[in-house]
Amino acid sequence: MNTIFQQYHSIIKNTIESFFDRKFKELSVVNQWGSDLMNRLREFSLQGKLIRGSLLILSYQMFKKGTPDWILQIASALELVHSSLLIHDDIMDRDTLRRGQKTIFYQYKGLGDMQGSSDSYHLGESFGICSGDIGFFLAYEILSDLNLDPQSKKNILLLWSRELVYVGLAQMQDIYLSTPKALAGEEDIIELYRLKTARYTYSLPLMTGALAASQNQSTIHKLEKIGENFGIIFQIKDDEIDLFGTESNTGKPIGTDIKENKRTLLFLYLSELVKNEDRDSLRTIYNQRSLAPSDITLIRGIANRSGALEKLHQKIHDIKRKTEILISSLDIEERYKNNLHQIILYNIERTS
Amino acid sequence: MNTIFQQYHSIIKNTIESFFDRKFKELSVVNQWGSDLMNRLREFSLQGKLIRGSLLILSYQMFKKGTPDWILQIASALELVHSSLLIHDDIMDRDTLRRGQKTIFYQYKGLGDMQGSSDSYHLGESFGICSGDIGFFLAYEILSDLNLDPQSKKNILLLWSRELVYVGLAQMQDIYLSTPKALAGEEDIIELYRLKTARYTYSLPLMTGALAASQNQSTIHKLEKIGENFGIIFQIKDDEIDLFGTESNTGKPIGTDIKENKRTLLFLYLSELVKNEDRDSLRTIYNQRSLAPSDITLIRGIANRSGALEKLHQKIHDIKRKTEILISSLDIEERYKNNLHQIILYNIERTS
Repeated sequence: MNTIFQQYHSIIKNTIESFFDRKFKELSVVNQWGSDLMNRLREFSLQGKLIRGSLLILSYQMFKKGTPDWILQIASALELVHSSLLIHDDIMDRDTLRRGQKTIFYQYKGLGDMQGSSDSYHLGESFGICSGDIGFFLAYEILSDLNLDPQSKKNILLLWSRELVYVGLAQMQDIYLSTPKALAGEEDIIELYRLKTARYTYSLPLMTGALAASQNQSTIHKLEKIGENFGIIFQIKDDEIDLFGTESNTGKPIGTDIKENKRTLLFLYLSELVKNEDRDSLRTIYNQRSLAPSDITLIRGIANRSGALEKLHQKIHDIKRKTEILISSLDIEERYKNNLHQIILYNIERTS
Repeated sequence: MNTIFQQYHSIIKNTIESFFDRKFKELSVVNQWGSDLMNRLREFSLQGKLIRGSLLILSYQMFKKGTPDWILQIASALELVHSSLLIHDDIMDRDTLRRGQKTIFYQYKGLGDMQGSSDSYHLGESFGICSGDIGFFLAYEILSDLNLDPQSKKNILLLWSRELVYVGLAQMQDIYLSTPKALAGEEDIIELYRLKTARYTYSLPLMTGALAASQNQSTIHKLEKIGENFGIIFQIKDDEIDLFGTESNTGKPIGTDIKENKRTLLFLYLSELVKNEDRDSLRTIYNQRSLAPSDITLIRGIANRSGALEKLHQKIHDIKRKTEILISSLDIEERYKNNLHQIILYNIERTS
């Protein structure tokens, strides 16, 4: 994975840096938050792996040679949208750390403390809401300013607005499904994976690259499906890593989905397939507030002997097969098909 | 005021309704929140006075005859942006009521209660963040889809992104200035009024209408300044109404700025001009958690005898004079100049 995207990382990084250099100058005259926020957004955006932007450029190059400046601009805008969504997500999930750094809203909570605010946590949340909003507006500014033919520009803007509306609706559904009275079957869960992560992380960059390269509807539709499948596999694998991973690999505690009572596909398969003698243990552990290492071991055992893990692997395998057929049908050079296959393999084999 | 904008109200209302009819159909297939949110956003948007959208069409018609469909689309997009900003503002201000209805995040808090959520207030906040985000993306979708010449469309999109970034930065400043250790002078306060409300409520619609009518930079710059002055007068008057208004006219309690320790221009003038014998009363009342009718009467008296109210009126008068000169210099029909003068008068004479 790294080897495919490595080549794009530094050019996207440079484009993001130039953008924030310019915005820093423009907005530092507005008020103190202009410069303050541009610094924070710049650092936050560059901390990411820039996978979405890289995939977007890869997709463009599958159809057209070269790296015009405007494709780099679009890639930067996508990374900025991603950062802004994360800033809002971190408020909703009350996450105070991301990639070893304080999240944006939590950074501003610290500022509230220094100012003697009587409710600095809420001040942080409010600043975080504004920060994410500003990030969205800046991303649309980049898109609006592109020197691209009007029709492609319009298509890309319309695609992004549609997809970002989906992300918001899926986020609402995700929160809703975690409430006690909500019910979620396999279809609901896969649908959530598709809308909340898969389409915007994989389909959106792939489709945008192809739109920028003026490809036809049939190609764009294939990339849409390929992207969805990439993302669903990624997300199902995420469930597995949450239980079977190691803290040293993932950099976060094991079993957080269990603690937060998340309705993952693995959890669904577990509850469907668990044998009588294990049912009580499973229920007890899922109702606990904290997890001991022995609880993790026990659930791993149940996932194995119930067949839940095997069913999860079968699901991944089925989606992989369908995706391989789609990739074969694309009219692109063999090396790009290989790149797409490598993304599937990476998503399946990753341990963090 | 009403008479100028009355004619635009129903056509904007119809355009907003058609937009949400279409979106309801499109998004109800995504998940349950597609239809749920489109209904709420529709109702919330239509509750407003649609002043921004009306001003935008008025501005267009000052230069060009007719009401093309796309100008109605732009006006609707502006109302939708406004609603989305309010949705986020209400979370930050913890406002549970707006125009007699529950605010959007508070509506969703109720949904959390019904679902047995252990933290329904936070669920409401999270749904509110998503709702505002989705509103922004929908507004950009409308703008992206306009059948307008590419250059005008680009100019409008760039203008909006810039102005909305300013609104966000000003909102951060507003929150910051309410913290105990922050200091704010006259310039800071006027600057806040200019960036947070004036530019986006008045300059943005006036400038957008003129851009849509392909006017030159000099005209657009005049409208920008006129809009800023409209808004600053509106906001200064707001300070006065908060103290001298009546609850039956405004529909909200008198003295909320005092209770919330807001750094308004009136508060600044009061603290600068208060005479020795009144200084202690002023400080005591500003440090109280609740306000008695006698406190309001006392502060009204101080505002009068200290000269703070007179200084506020003088400030409004100065800005009014400058704005009248700017309006006279515009190359538009006399009746439109009269309309603009009426907006100033309305902003000065209003009691609610």
